[in-house]
Amino acid sequence: MKLLCFSGSLRKASLNKKLLKVEMEILKGISGVEVAHVDLQELQFPVYDGDIEAAGIPPSVRKFGELIQEARGLIIASPEYNGSISSPLKNAVDWVSRLKPMPLEKKPVLLTGASPGGFGTVLGLRHARAPFEKLGNFVHPQSFPLSKAGEAFTPDGDLVDAASKQRLVGLLTEFVVFARMFS
Amino acid sequence: MKLLCFSGSLRKASLNKKLLKVEMEILKGISGVEVAHVDLQELQFPVYDGDIEAAGIPPSVRKFGELIQEARGLIIASPEYNGSISSPLKNAVDWVSRLKPMPLEKKPVLLTGASPGGFGTVLGLRHARAPFEKLGNFVHPQSFPLSKAGEAFTPDGDLVDAASKQRLVGLLTEFVVFARMFS
Amino acid sequence: MKLLCFSGSLRKASLNKKLLKVEMEILKGISGVEVAHVDLQELQFPVYDGDIEAAGIPPSVRKFGELIQEARGLIIASPEYNGSISSPLKNAVDWVSRLKPMPLEKKPVLLTGASPGGFGTVLGLRHARAPFEKLGNFVHPQSFPLSKAGEAFTPDGDLVDAASKQRLVGLLTEFVVFARMFS
Amino acid sequence: MKLLCFSGSLRKASLNKKLLKVEMEILKGISGVEVAHVDLQELQFPVYDGDIEAAGIPPSVRKFGELIQEARGLIIASPEYNGSISSPLKNAVDWVSRLKPMPLEKKPVLLTGASPGGFGTVLGLRHARAPFEKLGNFVHPQSFPLSKAGEAFTPDGDLVDAASKQRLVGLLTEFVVFARMFS
Repeated sequence: MKLLCFSGSLRKASLNKKLLKVEMEILKGISGVEVAHVDLQELQFPVYDGDIEAAGIPPSVRKFGELIQEARGLIIASPEYNGSISSPLKNAVDWVSRLKPMPLEKKPVLLTGASPGGFGTVLGLRHARAPFEKLGNFVHPQSFPLSKAGEAFTPDGDLVDAASKQRLVGLLTEFVVFARMFS
Repeated sequence: MKLLCFSGSLRKASLNKKLLKVEMEILKGISGVEVAHVDLQELQFPVYDGDIEAAGIPPSVRKFGELIQEARGLIIASPEYNGSISSPLKNAVDWVSRLKPMPLEKKPVLLTGASPGGFGTVLGLRHARAPFEKLGNFVHPQSFPLSKAGEAFTPDGDLVDAASKQRLVGLLTEFVVFARMFS
Repeated sequence: MKLLCFSGSLRKASLNKKLLKVEMEILKGISGVEVAHVDLQELQFPVYDGDIEAAGIPPSVRKFGELIQEARGLIIASPEYNGSISSPLKNAVDWVSRLKPMPLEKKPVLLTGASPGGFGTVLGLRHARAPFEKLGNFVHPQSFPLSKAGEAFTPDGDLVDAASKQRLVGLLTEFVVFARMFS
Repeated sequence: MKLLCFSGSLRKASLNKKLLKVEMEILKGISGVEVAHVDLQELQFPVYDGDIEAAGIPPSVRKFGELIQEARGLIIASPEYNGSISSPLKNAVDWVSRLKPMPLEKKPVLLTGASPGGFGTVLGLRHARAPFEKLGNFVHPQSFPLSKAGEAFTPDGDLVDAASKQRLVGLLTEFVVFARMFS
């Protein structure tokens, strides 16, 4: 079962890209899971604009749509920007929603997020549920908000806190079961 | 008192740009109000990316920030994308939030929106409150959601429905009083 | 498969109780579905109070919890109160969340709602997702908001509009498939 | 200027009642402020029910409405229940919304909350904004979420953490200025 992993942050040194790496390592250890990955920074989407769409949906959007179509679930590590969904994530969703067939429909989604502050993206992840639910995604009810992420990673890129790591392993394992049901 | 008006949709033929025009005409008729306008499509923001920011905040973002700084309130006509905030609007807010001083703080905001469907952007406008409130904007509690906007405008660009027009005049008048209080 | 149906409105002549009746009739026609029903008005919950809980969770709350436990999914018809979740529904959820084992966990939920106004409880149903998702319910991404419900029912209690009826039949059928997956 | 303070938790030993006490002490020290207080547990509201309303709005609801009417702003300390608004608070708002004249309209509100956990009611306070904004309250954009509230109070009932205390003093002082503007 292929799962597509991507981050809602674009910058290379993003804490969410670090978190995503931990998640991908865990997923690789789950039997039957194939991990796919895409970096939104490389896809270089423009901001959604109906005039651009009318002139032709950008090839990078189509490529992203195909990756989603091929996957049986999405795992997203996304920052919270201003107490709400990150603009790169919202923009990616808005572009993909214009594809026909629309690949997000009925696709299982897990939302996770890393934040340097103490509230671990809980507002951002709550806010991010809305577009996915509207588009018919099955968003897993649980999410994984990682607080104080600036100090959360070892030099090797693993999570420092064993209890957090264990919860993340548990949630990803549960999500794999969840995603399998919908396939 | 200068009020800055812009749309959360980029495309030229946007229903929200039509709504914004009606709003600007009304505002011009209110004593003491000076109407400023900016088109986000012309500003050509990239999607927010911390690496772009580190290399230098785009001049168009700085220009937008200055326009906000000079205004004593913001009037926004924004579509709902996928049951939530439009990505052009979220992206604009995320960029502006990186400026120092951050011009949105304590700035009064009125959220309005036009939708071709029956639910008039009520979910989108609710969702759009979050980043503004987080940033310290004083978002007026009322909003103006315009349903079935495809049939809502006369050939001259006015609102067909007199009752809707009257409500919009009333709300804009009230917002001007609201915005004045914070100056 | 037993499905528990209840309304988030207490009053006897509630539009949401009417909608629930239509839903129950449809469900009875779906093969393999057993319909259970409970009326929150009859259960007479007090407003949630930790001091009442410490003295003993009310028997009516325990009874409601058992009904949820026995069902393999919940179908809720709830009004929107003040642009948000109805207090009877929030109160019922808060009480049930105190039971051990907590019967809502991993229980599939479908949210529907009837409103006399034009915006068909879309804000209320969005707002109502939050506690269920927090408690681990699998809330179906789609909901059924019925606008202008004062004129939506025939004297026999069916839906006037055939297209609405058909959408409701489709959604309930889909929800039954969804709920079966989790059992 | 009279400000009405109440808690969205009913139980006597509530952490939010403790937080409210700290807030009332601070408010008493602000020149020109008169502090009023009401305990929702004592008011003994039933769960909102249109049939009860039709038989006569409970006198305790009318009393609460009068207290709101007499105040020039509301300061609320409310827990988060299940990632969302507390049912006692939602129920109180729903009852008050039925009064004519409706005393919440244009009334400034400050939302604060205490939580034993690490995320300090941020989801609950966000969720609680919705009904107030719908009813036309001017909800202050900032809120005060207090995390790990079980260890946050001194035996005398003050806040242990001086920086938190200072932020709370700052926010209350700012709210008083905010509330004055609307009077």
